[in-house]
Amino acid sequence: MTDRIGYLGPAGTYTEQAALLYAPEAELVPYPTILAVGTAVAGDELDAGVVPIENSLEGSVTFTLDLLIAQSGLSIRNEVVIPIHHYLVAPPGVPAESVQVIYSHPQALAQCRTYLETRFPTLPREASLSTAAAVADMQSSRVPAAAICPQRATEIYDVQVLDQGIQDNDTNQTRFVVLAHEDHDPTGHDRTSICFSFTVDRPGNLYNSIGEFARRDINLVKIESRPTKQELGRYIFLIDCEGHRSGADVAAALEGLRQRVDMLKVLGSYPAWEPRQ
Amino acid sequence: MTDRIGYLGPAGTYTEQAALLYAPEAELVPYPTILAVGTAVAGDELDAGVVPIENSLEGSVTFTLDLLIAQSGLSIRNEVVIPIHHYLVAPPGVPAESVQVIYSHPQALAQCRTYLETRFPTLPREASLSTAAAVADMQSSRVPAAAICPQRATEIYDVQVLDQGIQDNDTNQTRFVVLAHEDHDPTGHDRTSICFSFTVDRPGNLYNSIGEFARRDINLVKIESRPTKQELGRYIFLIDCEGHRSGADVAAALEGLRQRVDMLKVLGSYPAWEPRQ
Repeated sequence: MTDRIGYLGPAGTYTEQAALLYAPEAELVPYPTILAVGTAVAGDELDAGVVPIENSLEGSVTFTLDLLIAQSGLSIRNEVVIPIHHYLVAPPGVPAESVQVIYSHPQALAQCRTYLETRFPTLPREASLSTAAAVADMQSSRVPAAAICPQRATEIYDVQVLDQGIQDNDTNQTRFVVLAHEDHDPTGHDRTSICFSFTVDRPGNLYNSIGEFARRDINLVKIESRPTKQELGRYIFLIDCEGHRSGADVAAALEGLRQRVDMLKVLGSYPAWEPRQ
Repeated sequence: MTDRIGYLGPAGTYTEQAALLYAPEAELVPYPTILAVGTAVAGDELDAGVVPIENSLEGSVTFTLDLLIAQSGLSIRNEVVIPIHHYLVAPPGVPAESVQVIYSHPQALAQCRTYLETRFPTLPREASLSTAAAVADMQSSRVPAAAICPQRATEIYDVQVLDQGIQDNDTNQTRFVVLAHEDHDPTGHDRTSICFSFTVDRPGNLYNSIGEFARRDINLVKIESRPTKQELGRYIFLIDCEGHRSGADVAAALEGLRQRVDMLKVLGSYPAWEPRQ
């Protein structure tokens, strides 16, 4: 049976590109919000769901972190990393010289600022709700318009490509996570994500906690904090480390950590992303 | 001479309320963006500038963290904490029963969701650029409208208050920082904010670094990471600790830290906020 994989929609976004790369044969279902994807996975409507978690320029997607912290029945089963490579498109037959306005998501417009100021210094820019919605906004514009969008949008909408690779920063990447009921079996090249918190604030709390990893030579890939939403100055910590939760070292570190914290949730172990050729 | 204090505008927002609480006698100047406030302080146009840095529900304001990391000539001189207490207002003479739409910043609308669903279940909500802009949107609305705004907006705009304290969560607070060329002299009840990064990723890097604080019994108030913007998976760490950078323990911890990291920037020492009666 074909897997049903949800993703943060609409079709034509970088998230759909990530979902296609993860599961080219699956039935892909767009959802309007990150929360809706998570709820559908937890509620068994989907086999898995793909949502963005981190961009190399913008940082963490806090909606996704808060979903992982709060929602039960969700694990991280995989990660997918996509380079951000923006296309400039127009409706068929509209030449670049006649374009009077450029649509995209505000982040995409910001990521192409130098290109736009050099090539289209006088054109107004208009915000769209997503890089795919920008194509629809362009198509319904009353004046000749262009849009900045991902490659995927150029494949599914009737547009002509005016230019590509127009982002100012070529190292810009977004990391997505695949959410499912269960995480991934060990592959020998894994990562583990956890979150934890303390009820009482004591000097050395965090130090002693990450010491469980340091003394076992486990590399921490990432550390992040999110508010508990109860009181300013109280946090939930999120850590990504190398290794699988079933490996001896990581299992021992998690057991040690469990003694030191008041809440510990293992968000999942999954294969570390390897760029494909 | 009166101090000139910039803030993230427009007038009537929670940031103006924080600026007024910090410097009731100063000349307050609204700026359109957080970056514009920081640039004006660094460029000597202002004596200081007030920007939000953290909300107890939403987490860090990443624009402010990135400004502190990147901009030279800026220190944190003070912090101000404001409880988020929302007002429901309408134009004079417009009764609550006749209101057909409610404007506010999307975060403020979300923070009053339960109240709105109970009291005004059928009314559409419209997004404004700020809680102060919501009042202007209400005033220019073609149908009878209401707005959700801070107390400050009720003082400077011609509105009638329909209700107040309408936020769902009474512990919601926002923390602001006062940016200036120099930080604050010691008061005996201080905090210090720093950021640092590593060129090479090694197990124990972060552990050994925060060990400089733990072994001196210095409490870490906050730890956060931001992308370096060069490569996915490389971070700049931001830490707030108790104590002043000129105190013996904190000074020794910072000196120890400097030996362990490739970049260390002391963002400033400043009095810890104490709620006023």
